[in-house]
Parts: sequence; C-alpha cells; structure tokens
Amino acid sequence: MAISEISTKFLAAKKAKGLSFADLEAKLGYDEVWIASVLYRQASASEEEATKIVEALGMGSEFVEYLTECPMKGGLDPLVPTDPLIYRFYEIMQVYGVPVKAVVHEKFGDGIMSAIDFSIDVEREENPKGDRVKVIMCGKFLPYKKW
Amino acid sequence: MAISEISTKFLAAKKAKGLSFADLEAKLGYDEVWIASVLYRQASASEEEATKIVEALGMGSEFVEYLTECPMKGGLDPLVPTDPLIYRFYEIMQVYGVPVKAVVHEKFGDGIMSAIDFSIDVEREENPKGDRVKVIMCGKFLPYKKW
Amino acid sequence: MAISEISTKFLAAKKAKGLSFADLEAKLGYDEVWIASVLYRQASASEEEATKIVEALGMGSEFVEYLTECPMKGGLDPLVPTDPLIYRFYEIMQVYGVPVKAVVHEKFGDGIMSAIDFSIDVEREENPKGDRVKVIMCGKFLPYKKW
Amino acid sequence: MAISEISTKFLAAKKAKGLSFADLEAKLGYDEVWIASVLYRQASASEEEATKIVEALGMGSEFVEYLTECPMKGGLDPLVPTDPLIYRFYEIMQVYGVPVKAVVHEKFGDGIMSAIDFSIDVEREENPKGDRVKVIMCGKFLPYKKW
Amino acid sequence: MAISEISTKFLAAKKAKGLSFADLEAKLGYDEVWIASVLYRQASASEEEATKIVEALGMGSEFVEYLTECPMKGGLDPLVPTDPLIYRFYEIMQVYGVPVKAVVHEKFGDGIMSAIDFSIDVEREENPKGDRVKVIMCGKFLPYKKW
Amino acid sequence: MAISEISTKFLAAKKAKGLSFADLEAKLGYDEVWIASVLYRQASASEEEATKIVEALGMGSEFVEYLTECPMKGGLDPLVPTDPLIYRFYEIMQVYGVPVKAVVHEKFGDGIMSAIDFSIDVEREENPKGDRVKVIMCGKFLPYKKW
Amino acid sequence: MAISEISTKFLAAKKAKGLSFADLEAKLGYDEVWIASVLYRQASASEEEATKIVEALGMGSEFVEYLTECPMKGGLDPLVPTDPLIYRFYEIMQVYGVPVKAVVHEKFGDGIMSAIDFSIDVEREENPKGDRVKVIMCGKFLPYKKW
Amino acid sequence: MAISEISTKFLAAKKAKGLSFADLEAKLGYDEVWIASVLYRQASASEEEATKIVEALGMGSEFVEYLTECPMKGGLDPLVPTDPLIYRFYEIMQVYGVPVKAVVHEKFGDGIMSAIDFSIDVEREENPKGDRVKVIMCGKFLPYKKW
Amino acid sequence: MAISEISTKFLAAKKAKGLSFADLEAKLGYDEVWIASVLYRQASASEEEATKIVEALGMGSEFVEYLTECPMKGGLDPLVPTDPLIYRFYEIMQVYGVPVKAVVHEKFGDGIMSAIDFSIDVEREENPKGDRVKVIMCGKFLPYKKW
Amino acid sequence: MAISEISTKFLAAKKAKGLSFADLEAKLGYDEVWIASVLYRQASASEEEATKIVEALGMGSEFVEYLTECPMKGGLDPLVPTDPLIYRFYEIMQVYGVPVKAVVHEKFGDGIMSAIDFSIDVEREENPKGDRVKVIMCGKFLPYKKW
Repeated sequence: MAISEISTKFLAAKKAKGLSFADLEAKLGYDEVWIASVLYRQASASEEEATKIVEALGMGSEFVEYLTECPMKGGLDPLVPTDPLIYRFYEIMQVYGVPVKAVVHEKFGDGIMSAIDFSIDVEREENPKGDRVKVIMCGKFLPYKKW
Repeated sequence: MAISEISTKFLAAKKAKGLSFADLEAKLGYDEVWIASVLYRQASASEEEATKIVEALGMGSEFVEYLTECPMKGGLDPLVPTDPLIYRFYEIMQVYGVPVKAVVHEKFGDGIMSAIDFSIDVEREENPKGDRVKVIMCGKFLPYKKW
Repeated sequence: MAISEISTKFLAAKKAKGLSFADLEAKLGYDEVWIASVLYRQASASEEEATKIVEALGMGSEFVEYLTECPMKGGLDPLVPTDPLIYRFYEIMQVYGVPVKAVVHEKFGDGIMSAIDFSIDVEREENPKGDRVKVIMCGKFLPYKKW
Repeated sequence: MAISEISTKFLAAKKAKGLSFADLEAKLGYDEVWIASVLYRQASASEEEATKIVEALGMGSEFVEYLTECPMKGGLDPLVPTDPLIYRFYEIMQVYGVPVKAVVHEKFGDGIMSAIDFSIDVEREENPKGDRVKVIMCGKFLPYKKW
Repeated sequence: MAISEISTKFLAAKKAKGLSFADLEAKLGYDEVWIASVLYRQASASEEEATKIVEALGMGSEFVEYLTECPMKGGLDPLVPTDPLIYRFYEIMQVYGVPVKAVVHEKFGDGIMSAIDFSIDVEREENPKGDRVKVIMCGKFLPYKKW
Repeated sequence: MAISEISTKFLAAKKAKGLSFADLEAKLGYDEVWIASVLYRQASASEEEATKIVEALGMGSEFVEYLTECPMKGGLDPLVPTDPLIYRFYEIMQVYGVPVKAVVHEKFGDGIMSAIDFSIDVEREENPKGDRVKVIMCGKFLPYKKW
Repeated sequence: MAISEISTKFLAAKKAKGLSFADLEAKLGYDEVWIASVLYRQASASEEEATKIVEALGMGSEFVEYLTECPMKGGLDPLVPTDPLIYRFYEIMQVYGVPVKAVVHEKFGDGIMSAIDFSIDVEREENPKGDRVKVIMCGKFLPYKKW
Repeated sequence: MAISEISTKFLAAKKAKGLSFADLEAKLGYDEVWIASVLYRQASASEEEATKIVEALGMGSEFVEYLTECPMKGGLDPLVPTDPLIYRFYEIMQVYGVPVKAVVHEKFGDGIMSAIDFSIDVEREENPKGDRVKVIMCGKFLPYKKW
Repeated sequence: MAISEISTKFLAAKKAKGLSFADLEAKLGYDEVWIASVLYRQASASEEEATKIVEALGMGSEFVEYLTECPMKGGLDPLVPTDPLIYRFYEIMQVYGVPVKAVVHEKFGDGIMSAIDFSIDVEREENPKGDRVKVIMCGKFLPYKKW
Repeated sequence: MAISEISTKFLAAKKAKGLSFADLEAKLGYDEVWIASVLYRQASASEEEATKIVEALGMGSEFVEYLTECPMKGGLDPLVPTDPLIYRFYEIMQVYGVPVKAVVHEKFGDGIMSAIDFSIDVEREENPKGDRVKVIMCGKFLPYKKW
C-alpha cells in the first residue's frame, strides 16, 4: 500500500508532536488502531472526531475534511503482501482459515464474522518467555438471510 | 483448499459420533481450533495427542500416524479466497494491516507477531444487538535480529 | 466453478421431475434463486427446508443432510470469470463500482451493502423492444463501527 | 481505480457547490448513478447533457468536451477489488453467479443480461431492523444469435 | 480449455463419419463455426437443430439433450492462451484493441460490438503469395443506455 | 494501455483539425485502423507515410521520426482488459477460439493466421434492426515448418 | 506441462526400443527436436511421417492418427515455468528480449521472427572449458503489413 | 520493460550519431547484441569497455560509471510479454521447451544451458523465399552437482 | 507441489524401513538433502547411486530407473508458496534479495551464484536460547560472459 | 523492488566515499549484509547504530531518523523476480523447498526456521575450479505451539 500523500502529512504532524497512537488513544478516548486507520485513510471519522484528531495533531482545521471522506479502502499491493508482519495475517488465514470456519459454523450456524460491524485491538501481553502480541478481532455474527 | 481424503475420513467419524469441536475440547482438554487444525491437516499432533483424538473419534489406531505427520500447510485456492467467511480475514488484513503494523511497531519495536508460537481462539460473545464472533490471536513478539 | 458431484445429483433429479426453479418457488414458497443457491451448494438450508426441497425433487431422505451443511462458498475459476453471462456482473462492478460506491456513501454514510443479510431476485420485465432481465439486490446497510 | 485528474476536478467543483449526486438528479433529471458514472469517466454524455452537467457544477464551458469523450472504461486495480463495498459485488458474483445463470436460462433461454443496454439504480429501503441498500440492475436480454 | 467428455464423443462420431465441419454446414445449412461451437459446448442448439446435428453424426437421440443445454462458456486456461493459433487473437486485441475502439467510437458513438448478437465466419481467401485466413466478425452495435 | 505522451500529442492535433480517422483514410489512402495504429504507436510508418500523416495533422516535421520508430507494441493492462468494447474481443477468443481453431485446421492444415502479415478493417453494416459492426481480419495462413 | 497420456505411450515405446531422439533423427531423416515435438504433441506429422515414426517405435498402425492431429499446443504451467532448464529460456527473454528486438529492427525493419515458419536445433559444441549447448532458432522474418 | 532514463540518454546519443548497433560492433569489436544489452542496462561493462562505448557515442566521461554498474536485470512487464517480437520467444519456450529439454538431457545428461556463461547472436540469413532471422544461443552446459 | 505417485512409494518404503534421511546419509555417504531431492524427484541419480538408494530402501531393482530419469523440476503451487516453512525462503528472498545482490556484486563482480553447480545443507546448531536451523547454500560464482 | 529515494541517497553517499559494504563491516562491526539491508530500508537500526552508519557515510545527522524507522519490507516486483541473481533463490526454493522441509522436520519436528530471529551471511569460498558463493542462513527453530 503506497501511503497516500495526505496520510504522510498526518503522520509527519504526529511525529513532530512526538505522539504515539497510544498517546492519541489516551488523549481522545478512541482506540489507537482505529485512529491509525483514520490517519492511514482506511476509515472515516465524523466531523467532530476529525476535528479532535486534527487538533490533537496541531494541524489547521482545513485538514478536517480529509478525515471525514469515505476512503477507497484496502490497496495492499501485491495481493499476497510481502511485509513480514502483514504477511503473517495472510499465513494465519491460509493455515487456520478452514478450521476457524468449521468452528464458527458449529458455534453460530451458517454466516460470517462481520468485518464492518467490527473492531480490532492490539495488546501487549507480558510473558517471561518473551512478551506476546495479542490481536483481538470482534465482529457481529451475520447469519445468511434466506428468502 | 481441497479437503484431503484423510481429513474427510476424520470428519466423517466425528460426524458419526455426533461430536462438535467444542465437545472434543471438553473431552480432550485441547483447544477446539487446534483440534480442527489437526483434523484438517494444518497442524501435527504428538503420538499421545493423536492417540487420544483418534480414540475420541472411535477410529482404529492405524489412523494415529496420519495425525503425527508434519503436513504441507496452507493451500487455500485461489490466493484471494472466495469463501465469504474466510475472505473477511483477507479483507481485515487489507484494511487494517498497515494500521496494525504501525501500532505493533510503536508498542514493540521492529519485529512481528509469530504465526508459529501462536494460538488462535474463537469465542461467542453474547450481545443484545446480535452475538459477536471474537477471534483472539496471540503470538510471541519476535524482534528482528541484528548481526 | 466445477459443479460438485452432489449438486449434479440434485440437478439431475430436478430435470427428471421436469421442474424449473420457478416451479420449485411456486411449490415451496422460497425464492427460486435461493433454491438454486442451495442446490448448487452456495447456501445451506435448515433441516425443515432441506426436507421439503428433497421431497419436492423426489429424492430419498438421505440427501437432506447434504443441503444443511455450511458449504465452502464461491469458487468460480478463474478469478475473472469467462462465462459471458457471469462476466457481465464483473464488468458492471468494474464500470459502475466506483460510481455506486460514491452514491451509497452519500445516501448512507461510510459502510457497505451486506452480501450476507442479503437477497437477490431475478425478474423478467416485458418490454416491446425486447424483454429485460431485472436483478434486484437488497442488502442491509452496515455502517462501519468505530471504537 | 485511480481517479483521473479530470474527474478530480469535477468532483471538487461538485463539492464546492455542496451538491450531492441526488441533488444533481433532482436538478437535471438524469439518474444519480449515471451522473456519477459520467463524472468518474465511465460513461459519456451528449453535448447537451454535458453542457447541463458542467453548468450545474458551475464550471466553464471548456470542460464540456471532457464529458463527451468515450472513455476507456473499467480499470479497477487489482482484478479482485480490495475496497469492501466494491468487493461485495465480486462476492455476490462468486456466490450467486451460477445460480443466477441457471435461473436466467430457465426464464429466457440461452443469452445474457446486457451490461450496455443497461441501467443501475441505488435506493434506500427503510427497514425497522436497519435500512437496506437496494441495487436494481436492468438490462436487455440478449439471446445468442445462431447463424 | 479441457475438451469436455461429451464433446469428445461428438467429435469422435464426426471423425468416424469422416465429416468435416464444412460438410456439416453443407448438409445442415448452419455455419460451420456455429456447429463447431455447439459440439465444443460453447453454444446451445434448439431441440430441432440438435436433433438434426445428432442425426447427421449418426448418434442416438439420447445425445440431443446434451446439445440443447445452455453451457458454461469460455474456460480457456490459462487466461493468456498458449496455443499459437488462439494466442494470435489475444495479440490482435493487445495491438489493435485501442485503435479499433477509437474507430468504432468515431463510426458509431459510445457503445460496443455485441459478442452475443454476433456471428463469426472463417473463409479461405486464395492468394498467389499464400492463401489467407479471413475471419469475419459481425455483431450488433449496442449504444450505451443513459438513464 | 496508458496512451503515451507522444500519442496524446498526435490525437490532440487530430482533434484540433477536426479530422476523424475516416477523414484521414480518405485523404491519405491508408486504412483508418492502420492510421490509428500508427498514431497510438502500435505500428510504424515509413518516412514517406509518416510525413504525409504529420502534414495532414498540421504538425511540424520534427514529429515524423516518432512515427517511423518500431514501437514496443501491446501493453493493455491488465492482461484481461476491463474496457467493455475491448473485452468483447477477449470474450470472443474465449468462447469461439477452440471452434475457430478446429475449422481453420480443417480448411488449411496445421498452422496459424498471421497477426503480422495481417490487416483488420472495421465497417458499419446497415441493418433495420440496428446497425452492425463488422470487423474483418485477414492474415496469411502460415503452415508449421517441419525440419 | 502435464505430459499427455498418449505422449507417455510413445515415450515408453521409444524407451523400450532403446532409441534416443538422435537415433530417430539418424533413422528417419527428420530433426530430433521436431520428432520430440511430435511425440510430445506440440507438432503434427503427415500421414507418411507419422507412419514412419510409429514403425520406428515398433508400435501398431492404430497410433498413426494420434500424430497427425493438430494438437492444442503449449500448456506449460505455471506461466513462468519452474523447471530450471526451461526457465532459462524465460530468463533469456527477460534479459535479452529488448536488446534483441532493437537489433532485429535495425537489421530487418519492423516485424518479427516467425515462430511458425521456424526451426530449432540443439547441438553439442565441444569446448575444453566445458562443452556448450548451442540452440539455433531460425524463423522467417515477417514484416508488418500496412494497408 | 520501461526503458530507464539513463538508457534513453544512451539511445538518444546513438541516434544523434546515426550509429546502428552493427556499426558499434564494427567499431568496437564487441557483439551488437551485447552492446545493446549494455545500453539497455541488462549487462555491465568493464571500465575500459564502458569508456570505449561512451566515446563511440560521443558522450562525456561522466557517463562511464552508468555502464559499469551491475544492473537490476529483466523487468519485462507483464510476465507474459505483449510485444509480438518478444512474445515469440515466450511461445517458442511454451511449444518447444519440453522437447528441447528432452533432447538436451539425452545429449548431455541432467543439467542446464547456462544463461550467464552465455552468448546470443542475431544474424540475417538470406533466403529467396524471404530472409530469415537466425538467433544463436550458446551457453555452457552445467551438470547438476551431487553432494 | 503435489508429491508424485512414484515419490510416495519411495517415501512409504523409507517409512516402512524406519529410516530418516540422516540414516540414509550415514549409510550411503550422500548428503541427506540431496537424497531427499532424489526421492522427491527434484534430482536424478546415476545408475549406481540409484541402485544403492533403492537397495537401502529395500525395494526391487525395477525402481532404479525412476531415480535415474531427469525429472521435471520445481512445481510448487501456487507461485508464492503457502506452507510456512517453505514460505520463509520466499520471504528471505523478498527482504534480503536486493542487499545480498549488492554484496555479491561487490565481492565477485557481475554474475550469479549457480543453483546448478550448487549444494545445500541443513544443520542443527545448538543454542541455549533455542536451537537454530542453519541452511548453507554454496554455488559456483558464474560471471557474465561478454562477447 | 524500486529502490526508494532515501536509499538512493545513502547509496550515493557510500559511493562518493568509495566504501564497500565490506569496508563498512570492518569499520562498524556489523555484518555487511545487515548494513546493506538497513540502507535498502529492509531493516531498521537503533539510534546508536544509525548514527554510526550515517557518520561513516559522511552524511548529516538529519539522516539518522530515516534508518531507525521500521520499514515496509519486501516489495520485489513481480512476485517471481526477474533479476537472475535474485531469481536463483526462488529457483532453490522451488527445487529444494520440499526436500529441505522434509529434512528440517526430521531434525527438529514440526516448525520452521525463523526469518526474523535470523541472520544471513555471504562469503567467498576460494576454489581452483572457480570461486564459490556461500550463503549461510541461520534462524531459530520455532516449533509450532499447541494450545
């Protein structure tokens, strides 16, 4: 994913302010992954949310509208991503996709986990053998409609 | 992913026994997703684990060795999966991959979440507006070695 | 999409009975496209629905369970389908995808039309210059969750 | 689909005027999706239509000719689109493509729904459980010529 | 394109009878390319047409229904065909596609040549420097509908 | 195919002169599709031909050399083109490629239609049910050499 | 390229006879690469040539017709071949394709080396530093037709 | 392959000097294809060779270093090239790759023709029926090491 | 890579004998990876080597010839492998390919590491923090020939 | 992989200083491949490491921060690389991937060689028959977690 020009400006402002996404979460009360998604133009904010974010970054109000637009989402290139951190999610899907599907169907019936009515969190889990990354995805179960 | 012939036999035995993966978890003490991964031949079991699983499924001991072999993993076809439930994981990677990468790097430095020293759980979260699927991934953080 | 062996049996029974999908709709009260989706193993039926369908096709009750299973969906091969009728849907997405996205966002805000809480109907619209195919898609609008 | 430079100018003018596509539909009497297709350079307008659109956007007449040119259509990249809203149309084709094909052939014989002598509308359907997006495609049935 | 089993039978019957497609054209009054398309299951015949073809091939009437079915069309694999004769059509599209598009738009306006209301003929043109293959495509011009 | 900068200049000059490709054919005596191929840099002209074309477009003689260069041909992107008019040629190859191959082999033996010693013409065929696009391809038959 | 069943039979007969392709060349007077192409079903033989080849392999005359059929050619899978010997030809095209194109155009003008009116030979060139493989391709230059 | 900016400068200098690659071969004593490969940045020259080439092109000595760098080679895009002259090499590999492999193995054993210890020449072979392009590839046979 | 039928037989014999590849190395004096490559039909053995291997596996001499044939090598499917262990080699190439290229060119000049005059070894390196896999590749440097 | 603008600056500084990666290794005590990875933005350095590298290259301290950022890694384009030196690693994976997997599993059990807790070295091995490139990969064995 080429980082868009506008995202680059937001990230530069954030860096200049010396703020981490966790700092923004603490300051604004929104989750850090969601804030990152807004700045990388993968999610849109309301006027109010955008104003708060822009202010926290010390940017002018003319930047608000860039965060309220519904972005063209996705765009990782190539289709199978080459960055090792991001690829691991592809690998997890390749290896555990079918087993997870089987378990979801047993627990919920035919349907899916929504990726829209959805949140994703990243936590650091301390562990004497080496800390662990915890990624928690939580999406509404959507049963298939019959008609 | 074409389900392999040997997996089909294990799944048929499980169905004949009327067991869900959750039943197997309750019975054997292993996580249901991991058990599913073993039966779909995405993970390997030790001799002892395989023996317990095979017995729980009411199958003969000649099936044990199929579960201890290190399988050729992955194999979803095509590269971008078409099953909607599995595709959502691809979509999450497309949309949230870069934001999650940014947050992980801020929290841990340069490195990745292991997909090997890793577990994945599926839970049903009750919710009055519709129950939710919770997928918890937990992998060791691996910092890049410098040399 | 290779038509699966089990679908082939259902379609052969339907042909032997001389029933169209419209006949099945009239008989069973389910939409013809949905019934076709079940027989092509793109959708799953409840035990009751499956029993009625199997009976309507004059098949034995041992076929019921094949229709209640949650199928691995999709599977058109190659990724860009070559059948002209099916390709036209790909072309519509290529040509009208971005304009439709813009209009949906203006009408509903950031989110998507669900393809799960979703129905699709096919109608014949009479027209002196040549009858028209009307395809009506109707899916719940799902707004992006913020968190 | 990279939005072309010329489209960006039309969209900026529309934004500056504070007009939605629905407003343009109300004002000009053309469907909002079609107008969006013209501005995104997926459809061409006649001199008269282009003049009206350009005027409605408050732009100079030198922009008329850009809307009358027959554009190079399509161009979503990659072949399987990553934007979730647009992807759902791909998914619908993957899951329901073959069942719809079967129903169309039963209703009309061998042929296709035209994607050229074709219209597509987007409507908001109110629903107490959550409003729904209705997409109505209507294309002339074209029977295969024999010769 | 894997030649289907049923096509193989029709082609074997044709070979056993010692008939060329040109012979079938002479005998039945249908174009040889169209007859070939029916036998390769790229086109469907009416009951009457199918009966005549099956009889000409000296096959039993149980084969008629195979030719009346609406086939899943296309299916050349890979997407860029490797057979040199077929590839040349791909090359022609690559090299002359845009110039032909420009000329069609000048001659007809925005729209396409139908590939459905369409015929294709192959002729041998005698030429002292080496005979030439003449391929004549003729499809109805379909102007884009506006709405 | 991204239209090259130099082609854009030629097309702009042609537009400024108000000339269609048919006008250029009438004026210069070369086929309009070939002239378009030269301007889109898919074919090369001799010095004399290039000079005539450049003059007809009212351009300076410094543009002659751009038309005499042997261009890098093709370049439609993606491999399966998305523009509906151009795609139809891909579809024709998918659906009729194998039947045409069979007929060519019966008429000529093993070999191909040359795409080099080749011409392609576009004609408008009047027809009360709607005019038709006629595309005539004519290439030397090249038999496979044996050695 | 999956070696076809019929090729496998020819190759087995050749092996049983203990004949190399060079032996067949010596015996029949055709080039060894061409004979190999016929047996791998990439080229077709005349009735007379096929009869001689079949006899040389000690096979029954019922095999003659398999060698006279015009085969579906190519079919290496995947598009970029993985066998190292065959891949080197792909690499040569990648590295030297453009320079060779430039030299051919300077020597011959705009056109191509035919791959149909074409022969390819493989020779062993003795060399004290290690023998060399010499591959000689020789195809008729085909100049682009103008029309 | 996008021709790099630096290559464009070398080619412009060559054109300004009115030199063909054959002229450069005559002048410098290196093969014309190799010189072309150096200018297209597919091969690197020694300081001495680069100096001679740069001088022959009448360019300043600051251009020498560009020719001595080890370039990133290949880069034809897409993977299956669309330029007809270059594609023919792909076709030859598709059609004759397996037969050539069989003959090389019979002549040399298991191994490959090197594409590194390798030369490629282009010659014009006069022929009354039309001159022929002769491409001679000559690479060291590399037997597979066993260990 | 689908494991071929013949490889499956060799691997079954090896399993029945209870032999690891390390055991075969100890017994036969060939490297274990090379032996594995022969059994997976990625490398060919001499008659003598094949005989020894077949005997060590307790198989009949009719299996010798399968190991002396020059195999069609490679064949991992898809092009980007999904098995995590094998994928890591792809990832290493993606991340370290360009840096390694730069270092090799500085150390050796323009050329490559041969993958034919090449050996690859796998060793277990003991380490208190967790044992390490050591993969040692060693290939002859091949400088580019100039001509 | 397009070399990024910032990498180009670092490489230019290195060239201006006349330093090889081996010189940098000697000077800084870090491995030359790792240093190259940092400069090509495939690895990140600590503030201290970056400062040393930047100083060694004679660049201003404003360049330090570019080397401490966690880069988006990988990015070779296309998925199957065309540069011959880099491709050989792809080929090694294609040919030896499965045999190496089998040996690793026998030596270590189910798991992988880490590509993160990993080092890669390039050495020149002198050899009378031609020096050899030795590439030593060493990664922690990561056994699959069970849960």
